[in-house]
Amino acid sequence: MVELILIGIGTGSPDHLTLQATAEIAAADLILIPLKGADKSDLAGLRRNICAAHAGPQARIAEFDLPRRDARDTDYRHGVDRWHDAIADSWEATIRAHLPGLSGRVALLVWGDPSLYDSSLRIARRLSARLPLRLRVIPGITAIQALCAAHAIPLNAIAAPVLITTGRQLRDHGWPPGADRIVVMLDGDSSFQALDPQGVTIWWGAFLAMPEQILRHGPLAATGPEIVAARASARAAHGWIMDIYLLERG
Amino acid sequence: MVELILIGIGTGSPDHLTLQATAEIAAADLILIPLKGADKSDLAGLRRNICAAHAGPQARIAEFDLPRRDARDTDYRHGVDRWHDAIADSWEATIRAHLPGLSGRVALLVWGDPSLYDSSLRIARRLSARLPLRLRVIPGITAIQALCAAHAIPLNAIAAPVLITTGRQLRDHGWPPGADRIVVMLDGDSSFQALDPQGVTIWWGAFLAMPEQILRHGPLAATGPEIVAARASARAAHGWIMDIYLLERG
Ligand SMILES: C[S@@+](CC[C@H](N)C(=O)[O-])C[C@H]1O[C@@H](n2cnc3c(N)ncnc32)[C@H](O)[C@@H]1O
Ligand SMILES: C[S@@+](CC[C@H](N)C(=O)[O-])C[C@H]1O[C@@H](n2cnc3c(N)ncnc32)[C@H](O)[C@@H]1O
Repeated sequence: MVELILIGIGTGSPDHLTLQATAEIAAADLILIPLKGADKSDLAGLRRNICAAHAGPQARIAEFDLPRRDARDTDYRHGVDRWHDAIADSWEATIRAHLPGLSGRVALLVWGDPSLYDSSLRIARRLSARLPLRLRVIPGITAIQALCAAHAIPLNAIAAPVLITTGRQLRDHGWPPGADRIVVMLDGDSSFQALDPQGVTIWWGAFLAMPEQILRHGPLAATGPEIVAARASARAAHGWIMDIYLLERG
Repeated sequence: MVELILIGIGTGSPDHLTLQATAEIAAADLILIPLKGADKSDLAGLRRNICAAHAGPQARIAEFDLPRRDARDTDYRHGVDRWHDAIADSWEATIRAHLPGLSGRVALLVWGDPSLYDSSLRIARRLSARLPLRLRVIPGITAIQALCAAHAIPLNAIAAPVLITTGRQLRDHGWPPGADRIVVMLDGDSSFQALDPQGVTIWWGAFLAMPEQILRHGPLAATGPEIVAARASARAAHGWIMDIYLLERG
């Protein structure tokens, strides 16, 4: 039986790894490193360094290209489903190639925490329909925590709720009901620009926990345009960017 | 100048510590361990074990009793403010006693992550008005991630929002608008009982990442009463309990 271990590795610093994560990496027979396209090569680099520091002598390390999502599929949900099927195919092929006896520990290094806006758990479920599989999850530091730690701020107001959402949700639906603090992830378009900035404060971070880290915070009206400019120039300089922010109103 | 480092230690397993957290603990001159009352002595025990494993030879370890919140104060917000003032007093006294030169690294071990339903950051802000202080935050694994990892489930539905809230909010206001998935923390009363269980699924965990861990999941209508019973007997057996759950509707 294959034991598949989804290991959260944190969001940029190799020191985000937990002791539990390093022990699981050290015990793995096969470590899967998915590659996501040339411009994000820094992220594969971090995973390679983690393997070099923590993998055991028995470990095989398999890098493989991730299939891309077919952006022409107009049904978003259907496109994502087919994409996850294709990723499951590539995990399965890599596992069968390296562990033909279908026995051993397979570690997959997942950015941040495997529970948060990540498809690995859904792909693992598909795989368990095809192979005898035992699945385990090792939690990791999320970008939300990296953001709050970098700014030294609480996520929630005292005893109050917080909503975690995406750039698309914010753009399509405006400020969500139910919370005066919201965290926005997966936002390629600085969707805070769609809000009335009056009375809103933003805490923003890009490349969190990495040497390139950038932080900005302040009233959205004044700070929003600064962030848009800083984001554009950092993206041009590095070829890619990852950012996240917390908004508070009232 | 005093450097105060709030270090997230995760939620029960000593292996939740990150490499960054162990390095900060090893470098600390003074480590503060607040005691919260006899029934939670297991939690002070975990902190003591962490210090024994990671503190450096230069470290002083100071345990001190936390003041209790005055429950007679009928203005909740005012009561919490006065309580935080009193905790800042006890941090300040402990730091002045052990570092009379007001110079060195002070580590405070915070349950889970310092950003999530924790008052340390607010108390540290008070302290910085009284001492020359530099504040840093080291993120840690939260109970939310421990819950999702233990059940091997994603926190969010694909591209959808998630709300983090408290038992009191759920009891007083019912299912919050804005999200079909909600995480409930700080709930001594199993407040899911106040909801119409029709179409709702629950994933519940107590003592997550600890040897005593208990998990339950299923349709709220059938699983809710099981959880209430399991919670009562575990609480009677251990003298205390910490639990958290994810609800999904629709
Ligand atoms: C596909 S999601 C994965 C999230 C990850 N599983 C986690 O736990 O943080 C990617 C999004 O996470 C955020 N993110 C991840 N790492 C980040 C970093 N180091 N700095 C800023 N944002 C980051 C960004 O909002 C990005 O769009
Ligand atoms: C004061 S809050 C602190 C949360 C912490 N800072 C974190 O990051 O998880 C305490 C609440 O966290 C949850 N919690 C913390 N540790 C837990 C554990 N090991 N098992 C279950 N719930 C836990 C419970 O909902 C509890 O009421």
